Amino acid sequence: MGKLTKFIAILALPLLVNCKYIGSYKKDSVKYDTCDLSQSLLNEIHSYEETANTIINTIVNGKYKGGTYKELAKFVDKFGARLSGTQNLENSIDYMLELMRANNLDNVHGEEVYIPHWIRNEEHAELLEPRSAKLPVLGLGSSVSTPAEGIEAEAIVVTSFDQLKLENVSQAVKGKIVVYNEEWTGYGGTVQYRSRGASEASKLGAVASLVKSVTPFSMSTLHTGEQDYEDGVVPIPTASITKEDANMLQRMQDRGDTIKLKLVLNYTQYPDSKSRNSVGEIIGSSLPEKVVLVSGHIDSWDVGVGAMDDGGGAFISWYSLAILKALGLRAKRTLRAVLWTAEEPGLVGWAGYNATHFHELDNFTFVMESDEGTFTPLGIEYAAGVKGGCIIKEILKFLAPINASQAQYSTGGVGSDISAWTQSLIPGGSLLNANEKYFWFHHSPADTMDVLDPDDLDKATAVWAVVSYIIADLSEEFPRERDQINIEALNKLQTDPQVKLVHNKQ
Amino acid sequence: MGKLTKFIAILALPLLVNCKYIGSYKKDSVKYDTCDLSQSLLNEIHSYEETANTIINTIVNGKYKGGTYKELAKFVDKFGARLSGTQNLENSIDYMLELMRANNLDNVHGEEVYIPHWIRNEEHAELLEPRSAKLPVLGLGSSVSTPAEGIEAEAIVVTSFDQLKLENVSQAVKGKIVVYNEEWTGYGGTVQYRSRGASEASKLGAVASLVKSVTPFSMSTLHTGEQDYEDGVVPIPTASITKEDANMLQRMQDRGDTIKLKLVLNYTQYPDSKSRNSVGEIIGSSLPEKVVLVSGHIDSWDVGVGAMDDGGGAFISWYSLAILKALGLRAKRTLRAVLWTAEEPGLVGWAGYNATHFHELDNFTFVMESDEGTFTPLGIEYAAGVKGGCIIKEILKFLAPINASQAQYSTGGVGSDISAWTQSLIPGGSLLNANEKYFWFHHSPADTMDVLDPDDLDKATAVWAVVSYIIADLSEEFPRERDQINIEALNKLQTDPQVKLVHNKQ
Repeated sequence: MGKLTKFIAILALPLLVNCKYIGSYKKDSVKYDTCDLSQSLLNEIHSYEETANTIINTIVNGKYKGGTYKELAKFVDKFGARLSGTQNLENSIDYMLELMRANNLDNVHGEEVYIPHWIRNEEHAELLEPRSAKLPVLGLGSSVSTPAEGIEAEAIVVTSFDQLKLENVSQAVKGKIVVYNEEWTGYGGTVQYRSRGASEASKLGAVASLVKSVTPFSMSTLHTGEQDYEDGVVPIPTASITKEDANMLQRMQDRGDTIKLKLVLNYTQYPDSKSRNSVGEIIGSSLPEKVVLVSGHIDSWDVGVGAMDDGGGAFISWYSLAILKALGLRAKRTLRAVLWTAEEPGLVGWAGYNATHFHELDNFTFVMESDEGTFTPLGIEYAAGVKGGCIIKEILKFLAPINASQAQYSTGGVGSDISAWTQSLIPGGSLLNANEKYFWFHHSPADTMDVLDPDDLDKATAVWAVVSYIIADLSEEFPRERDQINIEALNKLQTDPQVKLVHNKQ
Repeated sequence: MGKLTKFIAILALPLLVNCKYIGSYKKDSVKYDTCDLSQSLLNEIHSYEETANTIINTIVNGKYKGGTYKELAKFVDKFGARLSGTQNLENSIDYMLELMRANNLDNVHGEEVYIPHWIRNEEHAELLEPRSAKLPVLGLGSSVSTPAEGIEAEAIVVTSFDQLKLENVSQAVKGKIVVYNEEWTGYGGTVQYRSRGASEASKLGAVASLVKSVTPFSMSTLHTGEQDYEDGVVPIPTASITKEDANMLQRMQDRGDTIKLKLVLNYTQYPDSKSRNSVGEIIGSSLPEKVVLVSGHIDSWDVGVGAMDDGGGAFISWYSLAILKALGLRAKRTLRAVLWTAEEPGLVGWAGYNATHFHELDNFTFVMESDEGTFTPLGIEYAAGVKGGCIIKEILKFLAPINASQAQYSTGGVGSDISAWTQSLIPGGSLLNANEKYFWFHHSPADTMDVLDPDDLDKATAVWAVVSYIIADLSEEFPRERDQINIEALNKLQTDPQVKLVHNKQ
């Protein structure tokens, strides 16, 4: 068998083993409100009350109060941004591995993976007509450069892909710079203009594309993020502009003004470089092969310092294990903290980990990731079946003293790195938190410690520690039965180009 | 008499004439809630109901709906920022004078005044220790430059002037860069660190100073603004940094880290240059010498486009007159729109105007300025006595259909340019509006059209037009009786260095 064939065969194995999990989506959601756990299971969960209180109090009022914030601030102040492929990211990984060793976690190690290495050199843009002005720009990850002397071209503003494809518009695009002035309709919909905008514009002959920063709120704030060139299209330079400038360009076009821009965008795409997912464990006392995984990603974009995205998620994952260890709490199953590398360029660290650990996935009892903010914690968003949801709800009652008892069912998966897992095979949870403003700061210079609050981070660490510890320690295995399974996500485990990429390199 | 003596004599004249206005502050504020206007005055005010409704409807629902926003957008898109001393500001003034002429306003003209001309060339800063990072900076108006090669020095972070003056701190300042990490306690208190920070640091031998941007909220946003060197201190370069970076530097210092910075700040202070306050009128039908003045300032800082500060205020002032004119409404008294130049460097346009028009101030019936935002209008904040307040309240009842009927008494003056007038001699009003977020955007790149809303601007124009027109048209003169008069403000009219400056130059 060739490497890839063998790989797909390995991937298919759990499918056969786990085919029972594939079911149709049951529309009756009422059942999620009524739990019917056995009295023995309830009794067992309730027996953790004292332990849960000890964990919460130690973190929120005791020895570790303020600790997550303090440690994270020290970390981001020391390293700043941690862009995929940079030595600075590797230094920050060394630092975390050192911390985990200092906590006496078990099996502390980095797991190698190749990751993209794209960097921003010089970038600036000017509005030449109808008036002269600087136009702040922020290149999108993996963008190619303009020629050194830049590109001067007319701009054409569109509000949607549909508008771009209108006959009179699409025929006018050739040789121009396409400016996407899309409406914010939520991240999932809007981010398409960032990730696919250059490709769609290139297909029509555009020489570059600019995208309104993907955010619901702006203070003339630039937001970067990954973009992908579709196979076969001519790669064109692409960057974000502010919402304010996109709106201004729209007004100018609506007035009939000719808009002329000059773009000088210079980036370097280096060969993939070696990085590591950082791992530390508390090995299980009686079921060491079974794993409850807590995680966040350590890499960030190159603007801001990645305090929120995803310093907070990485640090509550590391710190909850460090505290459980210090409290002498060893669960039956292994608790594993993974600090993913290179989430930002496309879950690349995860993809490598998934490839290496695919044989082990059947032993993954529950996977957790926090990558949508560590604002005021409300509870857990979970991807699990009815019984699993009921267990989570029961556990979360312990979090009532810090108002974090909400269990919210996700119709999809949860997390970012763990999303394909939790959409298909493996039950999991992410931190439910008051993250209404998450995308205000996301991928922007405003992602700093100021976004975070020490008390909120304490509470988030407490939620993380209590939930992961109890699930890892229950005598009963967390149920894998699911209402639905996302076949596309399952296919992603096999066909993700990043998985192939990493696999081929290793 | 020398010029200055003569000037002060002229200044003193209204003091004698108006000495009845000087009274002690009456603590009983209950009376402000009870009005006792004569029935004839009430009847006269009520007779404006149809006119008020016509004005409001024409602006909010009719022909001029969206007009203020549309015209302001066209203006800021055309000119961008309008910094004191620049040709671009003068071009924008020409544009406004042209607009006023096109509206057939009376007596349209510019009134010359000399204004400061300070510009930003290059500026960048680096954190050298404890780690290497770029530190975004934004120089403060009138700052001197560093040497071309920059300044490298240790930084010392203080949270207040009191802390700066502690013995162990003040003795350590010499040769260092002082970083003000002041708490936001409202603009009036906090802005002291921007305006006086360099002087206070220089007195102790600092080589430069940085100030946390003066704002209650930041998205890593830089805010500039004017600063003043105290007479006799060595002028040192000074700039703002983000709240986030100020907090980071504080944490570094608190950890015991040595902080080393490099600053390259390059600015040019040119000689004062000629500018103009833009004036347009609807000359009064029977009392043309009496003036109701509406105003805002046309200049802005060089970041953002000054849409909010103070494009909105300038445009509701111009547009309300343009609409009254188009509606054929000529009041008994003269309605005068003044678009102040060079407010930002220290009310310089006003100071020149005040010097030229001091002889006329006794004829100023009521003065209005909007310079604290044109967000959702709520009514009028006024500086007037009990009877004046009651008249305003009665007029504002007409604004009930747009929920802008609140009359709020100001214990000080109102407005910025008109503040010394309204603290002392002349009754006046500013736009009361839902401006809780004003200082989020103030003096920053985020001051753009996106801050404003077309409906809000319509309503603001309607409030401005209704209030100014009725006060200008009432048969009874708006009462000048005041509860208090601010002697300091009155002195300012005589002693303001800008007044002297302008006076000496003219």
